[in-house]
Amino acid sequence: MSLVVVGSVAFDSIQTPDGALENALGGSAVHLSMAASYFGGVQLVGVVGEDFPVEHKQLLTDRGICIDGLEVVEGGKTFRWSGKYFDDMDRRETLSVDLNVFENFRPDLPGSYRNAQYLFLGNGAPVTQASVLDQMGSRPFTVVDTMDLWIDIARPDLESLVSNVDALVLNDEESQQLSGEKNVVLAGRKILAMGPRYVITKRGQHGAMIFHADGEVTLPAIPLENVVYPTGAGDSFAGGMMGCLLRSDRTDLQGIKVAVAWGTVTASFCCQGFGVEGLKKISPTDLQERFGQYRNMLELDPVEIPQIT
Amino acid sequence: MSLVVVGSVAFDSIQTPDGALENALGGSAVHLSMAASYFGGVQLVGVVGEDFPVEHKQLLTDRGICIDGLEVVEGGKTFRWSGKYFDDMDRRETLSVDLNVFENFRPDLPGSYRNAQYLFLGNGAPVTQASVLDQMGSRPFTVVDTMDLWIDIARPDLESLVSNVDALVLNDEESQQLSGEKNVVLAGRKILAMGPRYVITKRGQHGAMIFHADGEVTLPAIPLENVVYPTGAGDSFAGGMMGCLLRSDRTDLQGIKVAVAWGTVTASFCCQGFGVEGLKKISPTDLQERFGQYRNMLELDPVEIPQIT
Repeated sequence: MSLVVVGSVAFDSIQTPDGALENALGGSAVHLSMAASYFGGVQLVGVVGEDFPVEHKQLLTDRGICIDGLEVVEGGKTFRWSGKYFDDMDRRETLSVDLNVFENFRPDLPGSYRNAQYLFLGNGAPVTQASVLDQMGSRPFTVVDTMDLWIDIARPDLESLVSNVDALVLNDEESQQLSGEKNVVLAGRKILAMGPRYVITKRGQHGAMIFHADGEVTLPAIPLENVVYPTGAGDSFAGGMMGCLLRSDRTDLQGIKVAVAWGTVTASFCCQGFGVEGLKKISPTDLQERFGQYRNMLELDPVEIPQIT
Repeated sequence: MSLVVVGSVAFDSIQTPDGALENALGGSAVHLSMAASYFGGVQLVGVVGEDFPVEHKQLLTDRGICIDGLEVVEGGKTFRWSGKYFDDMDRRETLSVDLNVFENFRPDLPGSYRNAQYLFLGNGAPVTQASVLDQMGSRPFTVVDTMDLWIDIARPDLESLVSNVDALVLNDEESQQLSGEKNVVLAGRKILAMGPRYVITKRGQHGAMIFHADGEVTLPAIPLENVVYPTGAGDSFAGGMMGCLLRSDRTDLQGIKVAVAWGTVTASFCCQGFGVEGLKKISPTDLQERFGQYRNMLELDPVEIPQIT
């Protein structure tokens, strides 16, 4: 059983009220793989330049992540992003984006990746995402991420891709933009009608929602007193979710719900540490313990429910 | 076992994108009592003018609510509020407030109310709220509501009251204002340190949080596609919560959590109907069914959790 994760590998430079970080390892494929690596075998697909240091590769392989699909472009430079968080940590501003080798990345999957049972297509041009799906030998359970840019400039390609996958993960604003609906419930249902089996709406500190023909689920985030660094929280969420699916191999609504819960737990660790540090430092026991607390928190003791007459 | 509810009884005139309502029965004590009446015996304390029609009294008594504590001021006029909701239904604007008989209301509890086990002190001047608490013979489990006005103009009285009760219910903004903390978790903890056993932060469409020495709980709201009329949703939430406590008589953290869940369920019905109509039309079965759905939604099947190694 394996999971292929396609996405960006980047150097992030970030200013927050608590401190700054220069050229830290980041990118969606990194956060996703790191988060999912606690659950099973992850195969990373991405691209870097010659400037990508061996320590970063080591960090990934130390977590058991296969990087056979990490292309290194000779003479190229790795994708760089820099941004700044405001006081409330809810809003951020992009200061600069240098796509570099990521701009013309056309993923070519190693043969050993092509029979994976789970596929996560990180944010990217929908045609590129579709080209990865086409390379898969057997049809994996496929989850797609996107962003405002692609909804803006590549809507037909995105809609075509979405109609052909198992799940779409997006945030509140993207769900409004894609559906044209302000109400999060109506938005989710409208996107579901575009064809995926599941729509998963990420709501940051307010949790996540799942839309499916069999029902709708809303789960809260874990309340945090110390959001140190939310970059990658959405990717860690998706990584924990994909990891759980890889492990449980259960993709009915109940299985997706448990996976979203694991995503929620995983993302909370990402928010509490700088960069991938938050994910690197945790142990499986930390994850398991917090999941147990989360599950208990949401458990409503049936004995205590007053029987209304 | 009984619950005393103190608060406003009002005529509300409201404009929403879906329609308008003129002089509808409203007020915190009304929404609270209606919501709590599904769970057990409610004793209402409030004040109205001679203009308060007999049908409204009938509506309350039909739901088994005791109105011995509803004072009628001869020649007086009932409290009137009018407001307007914006397109997103999240924001509203107060158009006019006529306190009328509510302005100088000094509650005088009937003897039959003074041994109630549960007391809800609806939003009002903290000294007036405290005067009600002083009239209680035995010490009830007391929950207090407040608003920005009292935090602004009567903070010492409010802090003194809060240190002396079991729980404070307030919304996100009020919790920020009272604590001086932006982060909802830090805010809740700081208010908890003022002395109440519980702080319950209402977050509208994003659910509610409970702060207690034994732990913190966050529960989501029920996702609604059709928020027709959110006036009174906060009071219906508190009413369902108090009703559950009245019924279960369990005030440990698990008991409060189940009560907050019932509040969440009850509030969702309020949002779906105009005024008290939403609460009037439902049956105990409707409540019980939606509670069951909510409980199932939050249940994370333990069999499905991947055991991380």
